[in-house]
Amino acid sequence: MPRYALKIEYHGAPFVGWQRQTNLASVQGAIEAALARLEPRDHTIVAAGRTDAGVHALAQVAHCDMETAWDAFRLSEALNYHLKPLPIAITDCRAVSDDFHARFSARERRYLFRILSRRAPATHCAGLVWQIKHQLDLEAMRQAAGLLLGKHDFTTFRSTVCQADSPVKTLDRLDIERVETPGGPEYHFDVRARSFLHNQVRSFVGSLERVGTGSWSPEDMQRALDARDRAACGPVCPPQGLYLAHVGYPDDPFA
Amino acid sequence: MPRYALKIEYHGAPFVGWQRQTNLASVQGAIEAALARLEPRDHTIVAAGRTDAGVHALAQVAHCDMETAWDAFRLSEALNYHLKPLPIAITDCRAVSDDFHARFSARERRYLFRILSRRAPATHCAGLVWQIKHQLDLEAMRQAAGLLLGKHDFTTFRSTVCQADSPVKTLDRLDIERVETPGGPEYHFDVRARSFLHNQVRSFVGSLERVGTGSWSPEDMQRALDARDRAACGPVCPPQGLYLAHVGYPDDPFA
Repeated sequence: MPRYALKIEYHGAPFVGWQRQTNLASVQGAIEAALARLEPRDHTIVAAGRTDAGVHALAQVAHCDMETAWDAFRLSEALNYHLKPLPIAITDCRAVSDDFHARFSARERRYLFRILSRRAPATHCAGLVWQIKHQLDLEAMRQAAGLLLGKHDFTTFRSTVCQADSPVKTLDRLDIERVETPGGPEYHFDVRARSFLHNQVRSFVGSLERVGTGSWSPEDMQRALDARDRAACGPVCPPQGLYLAHVGYPDDPFA
Repeated sequence: MPRYALKIEYHGAPFVGWQRQTNLASVQGAIEAALARLEPRDHTIVAAGRTDAGVHALAQVAHCDMETAWDAFRLSEALNYHLKPLPIAITDCRAVSDDFHARFSARERRYLFRILSRRAPATHCAGLVWQIKHQLDLEAMRQAAGLLLGKHDFTTFRSTVCQADSPVKTLDRLDIERVETPGGPEYHFDVRARSFLHNQVRSFVGSLERVGTGSWSPEDMQRALDARDRAACGPVCPPQGLYLAHVGYPDDPFA
């Protein structure tokens, strides 16, 4: 069957997350329903990362198998037509070989986390950022973030329901920038690894925010990491600031 | 009575516009209702620019008169509390002298217009941009925009219901930038004048988009301007890409 890679953007708010759940609105379920409008049967698509409820994607990647050989552009247009009015958009679509697998072929996942720092309630970016009312100490957060880089047992930063075989992961990047936007100052966290544990990014950002306010020192972050104990984690931050931003493949289907 | 200048951000979608209308949701009406929670009586506030239905503001300015001398920060916090959950935020508030007038003291208005150019439907920025599916010729649009600068009779670019005394205005700036965003390429129009005619910015952008697609030449823009005839205008573009971005005063109350 011809296989297609889909690049997918979505707003996480109306969904229980990526993964299909009976009688609940999921991103996977919505795209599979759109595929069934094109080829009436059950469809199962596979994504690079199963985002949680409320988490957004700028560029999720999934693959689907079709009975007919579709022109890839026409397939993306037809899916977008049937996805309306849901906030899900197929932003690119390419025919790929049978050995491409959106999840297992991926070599890198990048997440963006946006914190908006201002007192007045957000209007245009409501639901698209985690809003806090205080300023954050950028240098202290960067120092603490540096301690997380590399290969570690990240049990502290892993949801208790995480299904990964091992808590050991290699964090390749955790850069933090302060960005002036029309809505006020934002802190953008650029987090990259081959793969992540469940809730790892939100656990990182929640703990780093504690460092930014001064209630944690960078050394507290080291102690939290060393504890290998979920109870040592800072508060897990809310989902609406988190975006799956990029999935890297050795042979990028969208290049 | 102590007078206060309010800097106001809002999402235009749920409102019939700035101006109060009986039984319809307006930005002015919402803020006046919040003021009445603080000082129970009729309030009338005055804004620098009366934005239309669906038009956003990054930094509208209005003034209000209070019976009590409020601490300006406390006033903004109290208003934001009572404005919830509407997408209106008081982002700054300052005590000003009696001769400050949000409308008549203003020396410059700046508008931002955002066009998103991509085929797939917008998700995160739905309602915050005018989405078109084609690319635009930036240089042609810039050339046409340059023809509009300076003092002109802008009858062509003026709504037939415009109440201004004269169609003659001086356009100080109309810069266009192409900006790469996570959602795709956007064209940002930065439009500045002391004051504007009704629908002037949306008439400009709608006509410039015609130039960007190639269906108008820059010379067609010159002919449209010279015609001084509303019928010569291009299509007025939709409101959801338009933001009142800044109001300038000789003595900036928020400086």
